[in-house]
Amino acid sequence: MLHTPNHDYRILDAQGAADYLAAHPALAAHLGGTPGEWTCRDVADGNLNSVFLIDGPQGGLCVKQSLPYVRVFGEGWPMDINRARFEHAYASRVAPHVGTLAPRIHHFDETQFITVMEKLEPHIILRNAMLAGRRLPRAVADVAEYAARTAFHTSDLAVPFERKFADAGVFSGNLALQRITVDLVFTDPYVESGRNRVLSPHLDAWAASLREDSALKAAVARHRLAYLSKAQSVLHGDLHTGSVMVTPDDTRIIDGEFALLGPTGFDTGTFIAHYVMAWFARSAHEGSSQENASFRAALADDIVEFWNVFATRFIHLWQEWDGENDGTPRTHFTSGTDRQALDAFRRSYVDEILADTVAFMGVEIIRRIIGFAQLADFTTIADEPARARAMAGALSFARTVLLNPGRFRDVATLVGALLEHERADAGDPQATGNV
Amino acid sequence: MLHTPNHDYRILDAQGAADYLAAHPALAAHLGGTPGEWTCRDVADGNLNSVFLIDGPQGGLCVKQSLPYVRVFGEGWPMDINRARFEHAYASRVAPHVGTLAPRIHHFDETQFITVMEKLEPHIILRNAMLAGRRLPRAVADVAEYAARTAFHTSDLAVPFERKFADAGVFSGNLALQRITVDLVFTDPYVESGRNRVLSPHLDAWAASLREDSALKAAVARHRLAYLSKAQSVLHGDLHTGSVMVTPDDTRIIDGEFALLGPTGFDTGTFIAHYVMAWFARSAHEGSSQENASFRAALADDIVEFWNVFATRFIHLWQEWDGENDGTPRTHFTSGTDRQALDAFRRSYVDEILADTVAFMGVEIIRRIIGFAQLADFTTIADEPARARAMAGALSFARTVLLNPGRFRDVATLVGALLEHERADAGDPQATGNV
Ligand SMILES: Nc1ncnc2c1ncn2[C@@H]1O[C@H](COP(=O)(O)OP(=O)(O)OP(=O)(O)O)[C@@H](O)[C@H]1O
Ligand SMILES: Nc1ncnc2c1ncn2[C@@H]1O[C@H](COP(=O)(O)OP(=O)(O)OP(=O)(O)O)[C@@H](O)[C@H]1O
Repeated sequence: MLHTPNHDYRILDAQGAADYLAAHPALAAHLGGTPGEWTCRDVADGNLNSVFLIDGPQGGLCVKQSLPYVRVFGEGWPMDINRARFEHAYASRVAPHVGTLAPRIHHFDETQFITVMEKLEPHIILRNAMLAGRRLPRAVADVAEYAARTAFHTSDLAVPFERKFADAGVFSGNLALQRITVDLVFTDPYVESGRNRVLSPHLDAWAASLREDSALKAAVARHRLAYLSKAQSVLHGDLHTGSVMVTPDDTRIIDGEFALLGPTGFDTGTFIAHYVMAWFARSAHEGSSQENASFRAALADDIVEFWNVFATRFIHLWQEWDGENDGTPRTHFTSGTDRQALDAFRRSYVDEILADTVAFMGVEIIRRIIGFAQLADFTTIADEPARARAMAGALSFARTVLLNPGRFRDVATLVGALLEHERADAGDPQATGNV
Repeated sequence: MLHTPNHDYRILDAQGAADYLAAHPALAAHLGGTPGEWTCRDVADGNLNSVFLIDGPQGGLCVKQSLPYVRVFGEGWPMDINRARFEHAYASRVAPHVGTLAPRIHHFDETQFITVMEKLEPHIILRNAMLAGRRLPRAVADVAEYAARTAFHTSDLAVPFERKFADAGVFSGNLALQRITVDLVFTDPYVESGRNRVLSPHLDAWAASLREDSALKAAVARHRLAYLSKAQSVLHGDLHTGSVMVTPDDTRIIDGEFALLGPTGFDTGTFIAHYVMAWFARSAHEGSSQENASFRAALADDIVEFWNVFATRFIHLWQEWDGENDGTPRTHFTSGTDRQALDAFRRSYVDEILADTVAFMGVEIIRRIIGFAQLADFTTIADEPARARAMAGALSFARTVLLNPGRFRDVATLVGALLEHERADAGDPQATGNV
């Protein structure tokens, strides 16, 4: 499965990235001046790829390159370099629909696995803003808008099926990164795996109880199957607060290398999961309890706003759509009663997205706490017992939503349940009950 | 979308088919003797492709070729010739799992779009056997076995997702034939279309009432979306009694050119639909009413047997499976309670296939009566008012199951409802009520 890069492939360093731009006049023109006047920074803070920012007198660009291995680990962990192609395929697929909610892509190089895109500055990663206790007024509504537009416009509601089947053909090739999701998200947290990173000994009992929870594993199987077989729309596949760059008045979604054709609720559920985890983590963060309480209230409001904007916009896009589609052909819905039936169908369709959202949210929370890829929201809590309590609250919440799907049919109920899990017992998963 | 065949492509006639085999020693060896001793018959009775049977002293072969147009219509109706590739891809995909339930494929020619396969003789088409009032003791259980094996072994329950995504990559290319299904099955019957063939004037009111039934169209939209986006298993895509060849002790499924990755219940629903239509048609056929009544009772039993064998075999294959899969990884289900939870999950999975089966059955019935592709079961009823009554019964039944999905949760209830629709009023779709 590992792609051996071609003969001409070269791994860039910061200077190499500048040289690369210098060799492409159209790109160099964005920067202005001469290469000697350019500055270049390595800003990779993700796990997988190289990222450089190059500035010239007239502007800047961002150069992202994928490597045949996992960057933070090195050559000992090979990783299909074609992930760059899928990230580019995803960015191209959604670009016509997302306006300025994603960075503009200027150039893609199939040989060097390089994407050159708009440099985002002074944007910062949304997670970092949230960790610093900053509220970004637009972020939530903007990501909801992005999720609604990408979900709608790549679905059978907005395209002839031939277009969607073409997307299926493309994204069904993104095997290496889907394997990561299937293993790290849906499998490892429920077994003993060397990749798991349980906060030991505090959460050992929790980890064991998840492994032994047969009903939970059956619920996870249901949603793993949905992940693999519910081909509703082209998904980002990793839409968490680390894939969003923000300023107070601008929001951009980056890093779509996990793209797949899958269930719409996977993106929305992933995003909400990170707000939920920020909420639980917050209780253990420094700062006055007053400050923390109001920040958490704001996070809870954010979750409600995110879902409401998503649902409203998705339905609105659908109602306004007058292009061809094979899902609900216009010729079938012409009379007044037809349109009423279609509106009811739309609501049930979005209700089903919410059900999926809630479930995928639960799965994402569990994997971020038990599994390999941990979050700064928690790891920055130095006091381990306090960290464990925050994590246990999130686990208890996640388990409850997965085991009781019928109970969370609207976002207010979902958010209302956060507080019930606040006092989960880190040492005794059964005590927290509530399932 | 129309594929222009390559330069070397030649349309075969019967003699050409024999010459083709003569030019391939491995194939000629099946027939034995010299080409001069061979006989050749054109047996195409389907709509799309050429089919020849060639016999020699030692055996026979079947030669099927696709044309760049619809055979029965001629060049005025172009049709992507690549359908032969998808039929071959499907046959190859399921061959390891279906044993002798499909003809053996000896040869596929990508340039000539020719498949050379085992000649089936004295097999006849199952529909013709049923029309002649013959019961084939094995057919139903064999087709159920075939449906269970193909559904299970191509699903996430039996393969790593990489394998299923590879299938998605292949079958997402089968656009021309999916377009036929989307248009003829899911769209045309609910609008005024030049392709529809309503038995006028008898069923005009019925056709109008389907066009005006907003709730029905919403139900159809739900299942059209499932057809396009529920990527559960590799489907035959056209599994009706015309795609099955039988003797009293042998059953073969042919003609998988409509193959797609889709909802498992589509194949099973299509198959049952044709038994339901045979049931309704039977009342108007010649023969003693005693004979007809017992034949219909047998058809009703067949439906029950088909579903029960399918469900039992599907679950059994799943329980026995010890290969890798990503749907329900073995490592998740090890303890006694795990296995209980998994068993409950299996039952709910099969219940969902039944719900889909019932709905797709309804859609298939409607399209066969209102739409382009009519069935001999009905067209052989010379007395038009009687034909209309039989058709109205089937339409009434189909509409009821689509509008009341919760009511048909087991196959006995489904079959029990047949009689309630027997006396549907051909002239007054509302009178038959029952919805
Ligand atoms: N267009 C851009 N403009 C400015 N900075 C960017 C841009 N794209 C990425 N970055 C910076 O580079 C970092 C890494 O980018 P990105 O998340 O796309 O890389 P990655 O290696 O694929 O990450 P991951 O391991 O999360 O998949 C981001 O966190 C951000 O700080
Ligand atoms: N392997 C075989 N052995 C003997 N006869 C066969 C075989 N395959 C097909 N036939 C005969 O040829 C006829 C047409 O075959 P088939 O249904 O595969 O063609 P088609 O043109 O694709 O049909 P359709 O229009 O239904 O798609 C069958 O009805 C059957 O009588």
